[in-house]
Amino acid sequence: MRELIAEVFLRHLGNPALDAEADAVPLPLAEGEVMLTTDGFTVQPLEFPGGTIGSLAVHGTVNDLAVAGATPRYMSLNAIIEEGFETARLDRIVASLAAAAHESGVNVAAGDTKVVRRGEAGGLYLVAAGIGVRPRGLALGLREVRSGDVLLVSGPVGDHGTAVLLAREEFGLRGDLASDAASVLPLTQALMRVPGLRFMRDPTRGGLATVVHEIVRVSGFEARLDEPAIPVRPPVRSVCETLGYDPLYLACEGRVVAVVAPEHAARALDALRAQPAGRDCAIIGHLAGPGKRVVLRTELGGERYIEELEDDPLPRIC
Amino acid sequence: MRELIAEVFLRHLGNPALDAEADAVPLPLAEGEVMLTTDGFTVQPLEFPGGTIGSLAVHGTVNDLAVAGATPRYMSLNAIIEEGFETARLDRIVASLAAAAHESGVNVAAGDTKVVRRGEAGGLYLVAAGIGVRPRGLALGLREVRSGDVLLVSGPVGDHGTAVLLAREEFGLRGDLASDAASVLPLTQALMRVPGLRFMRDPTRGGLATVVHEIVRVSGFEARLDEPAIPVRPPVRSVCETLGYDPLYLACEGRVVAVVAPEHAARALDALRAQPAGRDCAIIGHLAGPGKRVVLRTELGGERYIEELEDDPLPRIC
Repeated sequence: MRELIAEVFLRHLGNPALDAEADAVPLPLAEGEVMLTTDGFTVQPLEFPGGTIGSLAVHGTVNDLAVAGATPRYMSLNAIIEEGFETARLDRIVASLAAAAHESGVNVAAGDTKVVRRGEAGGLYLVAAGIGVRPRGLALGLREVRSGDVLLVSGPVGDHGTAVLLAREEFGLRGDLASDAASVLPLTQALMRVPGLRFMRDPTRGGLATVVHEIVRVSGFEARLDEPAIPVRPPVRSVCETLGYDPLYLACEGRVVAVVAPEHAARALDALRAQPAGRDCAIIGHLAGPGKRVVLRTELGGERYIEELEDDPLPRIC
Repeated sequence: MRELIAEVFLRHLGNPALDAEADAVPLPLAEGEVMLTTDGFTVQPLEFPGGTIGSLAVHGTVNDLAVAGATPRYMSLNAIIEEGFETARLDRIVASLAAAAHESGVNVAAGDTKVVRRGEAGGLYLVAAGIGVRPRGLALGLREVRSGDVLLVSGPVGDHGTAVLLAREEFGLRGDLASDAASVLPLTQALMRVPGLRFMRDPTRGGLATVVHEIVRVSGFEARLDEPAIPVRPPVRSVCETLGYDPLYLACEGRVVAVVAPEHAARALDALRAQPAGRDCAIIGHLAGPGKRVVLRTELGGERYIEELEDDPLPRIC
């Protein structure tokens, strides 16, 4: 089994930077600040409409670097594989991983596989570390956020969470919804050309609501969101209504939330809209004086507080 | 449980480079070639004489960088934790991880934890990626090896494999053997000051025999090992005799195998001996003309071939 596994990974991921015999590999890096990120992927099911745990591992890693203002360059990849895991399935997953890495311009430079006992690892876990480079002296981060700043989202929220939910088949619902999982690098690069960009984040676990809560917690400002302005696809809305979920808490894997100075918000919106993945972007609210609350102006004109997520509504979806 | 886990990791691993809120963190790196390595740790039992899965994750990562000629600088750490895993035990393991990182001079700069269902992760899996820096233009690697070169080992082999074996308690044997798990950085740095150093590797999975087989496979030379010269502690020898294992195939986690030009072998031995961890180092053989075989001259003066390991004799010990 070990040989079969090695063959699958090397066939899909072989590249000049990946030396299977080396203890450690050199990374040719351009000038700039070297950035590191890491994430573990334990999603169930392993394959879902719009992606697999393999493409998700790449997109999750690439996106964490992209929203930090970096260009992703290299990844390390660890696979923890259950003994007896179907090779054809592993092949599909690694192929989708390799395709996502290729599209995202990132090289899998180091890797390792471990085979564990039957019943362990839910079939397959993936862990990735990502290395990127960003310009030095970039003023980007939660500490740059000001009162009056505008909140943008690059596209509809909750697609990934809903797609994974339906793929589990435990709810007896079917739909043609696909995950939004994708590299957000074209979106972050477009935003970085806009002056007044303060902060970017991809709303994965805990969704849009969780990102906005993090913004208010660190900045100390109140966030005022405009419910009718938040893009949610009709099928996502209807699945959420049926099952009692709030799309604001569901994971996205290909969206960006950005905070921009108000005088540059229109330009940021244009920059996003010029990208295929940003066509449905929207201004969804702004930051007001001190408060640390997240206030939603509802479709009916009322107001309600968006609470912080206590527990992940859907474990292991990202 | 998620909060408890976050608290344990931050308490032990908090450092200025570890920003729990960031998607990606900048790595201040000195001039030189940036090196990347990664490994997954699924050892059972999670605690054993001389270490834990936590210290092992650090030593394994640090050592892969060290034998590549690099100084380890940063690590990313992923923990996949079974639901209900005892917090006191997690605390001990993360404390030993933090102590090993501190001793090895490596910063845990990025991390992530995932909680999975009961029974799925053998309690705890760890995955680490390591980043180090090494001087540019270093001539170190299997391609530098020449016929006539001398093989050295920095200390007795098989301690880690035997200690883990005994800690499993499934053999009904007890002993006071401890794992040799440790950073080999002082040893590799000492060797790098010796001219004629060609190659270094830490003999982990598959032990000394597997490293020597890799040397002959890539170089095309025959390796001639001298059995009486290979240091093996008497308790390791006696456990192996009782259970039918060959210590040459058992994992070490704190040893270095080095290939050195013959005219500098004595100096390399002196350099190792000057380190506390290298006191029991030895010249164990040399490389001869073409052949790709590993030949062992036995204690009785006979010769036998050391075969390549077909399957790991002890799954999940490193």
